[in-house]
Amino acid sequence: MKTIKESASAAKAASAEVAHLSTDTKNAALLTMAEALVEDKEKIIAANARDMKAAKERGTSDALLDRLALNEKRIADMAEGIRQIAALPDPVGEIIDSWVTADGLRIKKVRVPMGVIGIIYEARPNVTADAAALAFKAGSSILLRGSASAYESNAAIVSSLRRALTSHGICPDAVCLVEDNNREAVSEMLRMREYIDVIIPRGGASLIKNAVENSTVPVIETGVGNCHVYVDESADYDMAENIVVNAKTQRPGVCNAAETLLVHKKWAEKYLGRLLSKLVSLGVELHGDEISRSFCDAVIPATDDDWAEEYLSLKMAVRVVDDVREAVAHINKYGTKHTECIVTSSPGSEVAKYFKETVDAAAVNVNASTRFTDGFMYGFGAEIGISTQKLHARGPMGLREITSYKYIVEGDGQIRK
Amino acid sequence: MKTIKESASAAKAASAEVAHLSTDTKNAALLTMAEALVEDKEKIIAANARDMKAAKERGTSDALLDRLALNEKRIADMAEGIRQIAALPDPVGEIIDSWVTADGLRIKKVRVPMGVIGIIYEARPNVTADAAALAFKAGSSILLRGSASAYESNAAIVSSLRRALTSHGICPDAVCLVEDNNREAVSEMLRMREYIDVIIPRGGASLIKNAVENSTVPVIETGVGNCHVYVDESADYDMAENIVVNAKTQRPGVCNAAETLLVHKKWAEKYLGRLLSKLVSLGVELHGDEISRSFCDAVIPATDDDWAEEYLSLKMAVRVVDDVREAVAHINKYGTKHTECIVTSSPGSEVAKYFKETVDAAAVNVNASTRFTDGFMYGFGAEIGISTQKLHARGPMGLREITSYKYIVEGDGQIRK
Repeated sequence: MKTIKESASAAKAASAEVAHLSTDTKNAALLTMAEALVEDKEKIIAANARDMKAAKERGTSDALLDRLALNEKRIADMAEGIRQIAALPDPVGEIIDSWVTADGLRIKKVRVPMGVIGIIYEARPNVTADAAALAFKAGSSILLRGSASAYESNAAIVSSLRRALTSHGICPDAVCLVEDNNREAVSEMLRMREYIDVIIPRGGASLIKNAVENSTVPVIETGVGNCHVYVDESADYDMAENIVVNAKTQRPGVCNAAETLLVHKKWAEKYLGRLLSKLVSLGVELHGDEISRSFCDAVIPATDDDWAEEYLSLKMAVRVVDDVREAVAHINKYGTKHTECIVTSSPGSEVAKYFKETVDAAAVNVNASTRFTDGFMYGFGAEIGISTQKLHARGPMGLREITSYKYIVEGDGQIRK
Repeated sequence: MKTIKESASAAKAASAEVAHLSTDTKNAALLTMAEALVEDKEKIIAANARDMKAAKERGTSDALLDRLALNEKRIADMAEGIRQIAALPDPVGEIIDSWVTADGLRIKKVRVPMGVIGIIYEARPNVTADAAALAFKAGSSILLRGSASAYESNAAIVSSLRRALTSHGICPDAVCLVEDNNREAVSEMLRMREYIDVIIPRGGASLIKNAVENSTVPVIETGVGNCHVYVDESADYDMAENIVVNAKTQRPGVCNAAETLLVHKKWAEKYLGRLLSKLVSLGVELHGDEISRSFCDAVIPATDDDWAEEYLSLKMAVRVVDDVREAVAHINKYGTKHTECIVTSSPGSEVAKYFKETVDAAAVNVNASTRFTDGFMYGFGAEIGISTQKLHARGPMGLREITSYKYIVEGDGQIRK
């Protein structure tokens, strides 16, 4: 077994080569990576079966088992994801800006690879292939630290990807899996400033909290989404119902699903009973304030915890507010800076303007479901996560968001006076 | 005395107001801030005298006393700095990008303020006014944690700035000074994720290391500069001498001064003796490898520590290398990712291309002194520091670099299929 230091050091050593591969070479290698996964599907499924068996023996929940499971279809999907990444424009070398200074220096701001990207994630083997392909296209090495419970699956996937790199004469250490499955390896990884340029934690709140609190490597915080839909006084009923139902029920277990419904008191008088009945009929468990409960018997009293919780399930908190100011104050108090939505029939109004300007979140949606905050939906072609911090990248992170830049300054012998 | 929590919470509360001030209001307030410093110069100088007296009693070095000292001229310079910031374009509200997605969503990527910027710095009271003005123009509150030894000076400056804000009806807590001068206050500040969006440490290596290692708030690492000048085989002697002398001696105590000279072996044979004699005649103490010492008797043998050290004084390490590859390997091993320079008479050559592409630094200069890495020299109008990390901002940070962005997504009721 390689120690984590050996893995990180290998990824760092490979990063100089990866940074300078041509777009054509990277794309050809990506297509071979996709092919290799399909060719090796039996080995990967066999490795996954070992993980699944151990997970079942530990009494893992069905939901987690479903995330862990691989089959032919899921492997084909991973391969297709890699092919899509091959088809995306190469971010490396893009001239972001250029100008000439008063001293006659010609400055270019050029997009460059990050170096080594570390990713810490849960038992979802598809993330292994996705993240490796994204980092590689963006010119960086990747150090993958998946869950110990998916180790066999991850190792099989990484082995296929590395074989593909080697077949193109590329150092396979561009994709490194952490082989040390002890918890201490994560702590060590979080302090490897010498080898790792950025760490992206992907997973539940405790995994992210651990990275944020203990890392000395810069972290991009991702994913926790306590998203709200605010239905303003002027909202059209059908649009409001469509958006609230979609945001809550279309895929409740993901970070861009809505968790709290805020409703203007005047709209509530006319329509809230009908909307809440609709949600109840769809199996949503409602936790509401006193006024909202007066419109629907099925609503359970909400506690302060309900406003802060990311349910990730068919539950929704409901609160009636006096106006947009109260809605925004609630959102900025309890939200996680992910995605916030207003439904209004006057998108050009002062109310909508106030909402757009004052809500502090990566994405502020006017008359569009919170579910759209996603690299694919934004047209980025792929995403490595959704940033909920303000530094570096905010919202969906595609290829550009996992790069850095440098200044190339060209002169004719200028010195500073 | 306010606790640091009270100060941070006040800055946070004020940030929502600052974020929405019009450009005109901010500029008018900045001009009043500049005026207030000049009006209050006697009070400020008196406060500074108390800091100076205590510092002298503690036996503070002349260099540090010089940084701490304020006089009428320095106060006028601070005021002029603020006026220049007033004249810069407002970064807030800039539409960075916009597009329409396949679902017909109209997405705008809009520049927004960071929120609360925390800055931790040494005994240089001019940073207090600079940083406060930059943060304010960028729409953020600032929490200033200066050195305890400059507390009286900082408090007097902040008091003037706050009076100016109040006179425009703006909450003065947009500019907050940490009143708790205990070291524990810094530790507490580094963990105030609830109130502070980013921390920028400005000062020596240990101050920066403390922030990087102990902060849970995202940090932008600044300033340590072990910068190199590489003189290639083809370099013109006069240009090389001009650049090396300027990079080393024009202001040796700053981060963009050069610390190590790397010379191609063929150029060394012809010119290194002459160049080293020139440096010696200018008072530079040279620490060199064996070959470089053969060209000049005054060169002291270099140790491994010399390659890694940021001298910040009239000392320079010297090494003769076989070619650009050896030079770049040296730079990427010992450099601090700040500014690296190549001198060459063939700026379009493969050698120059290799240097530009392979050196891992915020700024890579071809035939231009390292001393140009500076927000003013780049034309940013001002700077809050020079980032040496790859995340968020790299190199000189002006107003744009201390902002974030958000996505405004406008639809007509779209839901996700």
